[in-house]
Amino acid sequence: MRMSDQRLEKLMRRKDLDAILFWGSENIRYLCGFTGSDGVLIYAREGRFFLTDSRYTEQAKSEVGNAVVSQYRQKISGISRALKFLRVRRIGFESAAINFESYRKLQEKLTRVLMVHLSGELAGLRAVKEAEEVARIKKAVQIASDSFLKTASRMIPGFSELAIAEFLEYQFRRRGGERPSFDTIVASGSRAALPHGAASEKRLAKGETVVVDFGTRFQGYHSDETKTLILGKPDAKTKRIYEIVRRAQAKAIQTVRPGVTGREIDAAARGLIQKAGYGKFFGHGTGHGVGLAVHEDPVISPRGKAVIEEGMVFTVEPGIYVPGWGGVRLEDMVRVTSNGCERLTSLSKAIKDNIVI
Amino acid sequence: MRMSDQRLEKLMRRKDLDAILFWGSENIRYLCGFTGSDGVLIYAREGRFFLTDSRYTEQAKSEVGNAVVSQYRQKISGISRALKFLRVRRIGFESAAINFESYRKLQEKLTRVLMVHLSGELAGLRAVKEAEEVARIKKAVQIASDSFLKTASRMIPGFSELAIAEFLEYQFRRRGGERPSFDTIVASGSRAALPHGAASEKRLAKGETVVVDFGTRFQGYHSDETKTLILGKPDAKTKRIYEIVRRAQAKAIQTVRPGVTGREIDAAARGLIQKAGYGKFFGHGTGHGVGLAVHEDPVISPRGKAVIEEGMVFTVEPGIYVPGWGGVRLEDMVRVTSNGCERLTSLSKAIKDNIVI
Repeated sequence: MRMSDQRLEKLMRRKDLDAILFWGSENIRYLCGFTGSDGVLIYAREGRFFLTDSRYTEQAKSEVGNAVVSQYRQKISGISRALKFLRVRRIGFESAAINFESYRKLQEKLTRVLMVHLSGELAGLRAVKEAEEVARIKKAVQIASDSFLKTASRMIPGFSELAIAEFLEYQFRRRGGERPSFDTIVASGSRAALPHGAASEKRLAKGETVVVDFGTRFQGYHSDETKTLILGKPDAKTKRIYEIVRRAQAKAIQTVRPGVTGREIDAAARGLIQKAGYGKFFGHGTGHGVGLAVHEDPVISPRGKAVIEEGMVFTVEPGIYVPGWGGVRLEDMVRVTSNGCERLTSLSKAIKDNIVI
Repeated sequence: MRMSDQRLEKLMRRKDLDAILFWGSENIRYLCGFTGSDGVLIYAREGRFFLTDSRYTEQAKSEVGNAVVSQYRQKISGISRALKFLRVRRIGFESAAINFESYRKLQEKLTRVLMVHLSGELAGLRAVKEAEEVARIKKAVQIASDSFLKTASRMIPGFSELAIAEFLEYQFRRRGGERPSFDTIVASGSRAALPHGAASEKRLAKGETVVVDFGTRFQGYHSDETKTLILGKPDAKTKRIYEIVRRAQAKAIQTVRPGVTGREIDAAARGLIQKAGYGKFFGHGTGHGVGLAVHEDPVISPRGKAVIEEGMVFTVEPGIYVPGWGGVRLEDMVRVTSNGCERLTSLSKAIKDNIVI
């Protein structure tokens, strides 16, 4: 029995639930293997029931091994019918995945069922990765690194951010990537001050820094990595900011081991950046779990209270963004080991390997 | 003043609301121009306020023209602070876009604010497209058609579904497509019975039908189209099923004009398929609106009660899926005119143009 199953059964006992309703595609895929985008999983004492509509029934029958597959015409009434059949009185539900409107309609139908919202209780359900999951993540990382190296010759003055993103994403696909993990970020010059600057028509120019945040998906699992290239000999400010981010990242990675909290890892990077005087230019968290979702537990930020466990996989990605000037972000993925961590991404983040002359 | 603004102000008066909280990225983009993925728009009597975190502040300042941009550290408390500042007592919210957990946390903070769920009231807010929106959709359609034609030479026995999807998506990108509208569907042989069969390693074989459902995004707006190719001389069954779907689609398209309901358009296609004896093999709706979201209002299905208006843009895509055998789906996008509709997609759906020998 998987860890997640033990945890869910314990949760059902503790909250006195007859069932849990899973709504989000990631948890559904994790728990029963369905890879489509619409359907619900009822995780009941009597067994598991995967419900979907006619678009996905055939697919579900071939993918779902550990749940009864049943077809509905209309989602809300389909769920209601199943819960009546199963005589469910108290059901937990994935409150961060269901939208308020669906909740409301469901509650309207289920007049005799108590709906118990579950959010923190389900946090980290997928955070500790099994060997097979790590293998898929590693493959996604490999595809992404190979693609980056193949694209590097175009990351020079004159090429547009879009042309680079386009070529990089094509390389993902050629190597078996299912889709980019997110819209590839290529942000150069003052645009690098936008932490999430989608690639634009802007052309790279000499003297700029270029933040390239990229990743791809393999068999449902994602990669996520950021390189910052420096186009030409870096000036003193660029060098200084790059080295601060680099040291902050290294310090955070050194902090990773079972037993620390996400907050402590974040504090390691943030403290160093603050001491260097750039605290207000680092506005986001230091990292996030990666797996079936690109952003999942654990949270590595000042709000990350969860304790880090062996087998968790997450990013470490501090950055400094100075409006008008530009930015630097360095991001790697790590897997927690028994006494530290293993870096899953392999491209160098040392400044000397990121100067493009 | 835009139609949508008039409608929102009327809605606020009718429901006695001080403000409406927009949560979904499409409505936010539509109403204030922000193209990023996180933030909220408070549409208040006093004015509009776009709130986001440090990752997006710079971007929002450059994109958002008609709203005050303000930065929060934490979303829920940021919203709460803004509503207190604006002295909001009754706020409508986009209940189909906000997840239950965020609603719950917000309600917990806003002890003195009445939250009014809005769903049907906001339906179709973006359904009637302005000229500029139609132009973007047409451009997306054009990129997709050109890409399809460029890829057609590979849609022959021997190529894998994945190789076709990969090449097609690369062509989108090369022509300025921002990203595929969805994971490109290439489903051949018995896999064509999966209405949403993502491309797999399976290779195309002679005698099969291949459903290719594809689209791309341009400046935020999507295209969506489906061709079904027949590899080799079609047998009697294939020919018959293809022609039924073709006639059903034509009939539905003929039905489109201002004043009919989505349900009536659906019934035109569905009735014909039922009469031909394939009713139970057409499980999904006949179509859906397309714009900033790939699936949006109006709904063209047995549940489509909304009245069709001039300027709406949606798909017409009946299909027949026979488990074990395969499937046929034909999909075009139309724009409603004053007395009928204009087809936005241009690739031929006639059987003679879809036989690959």
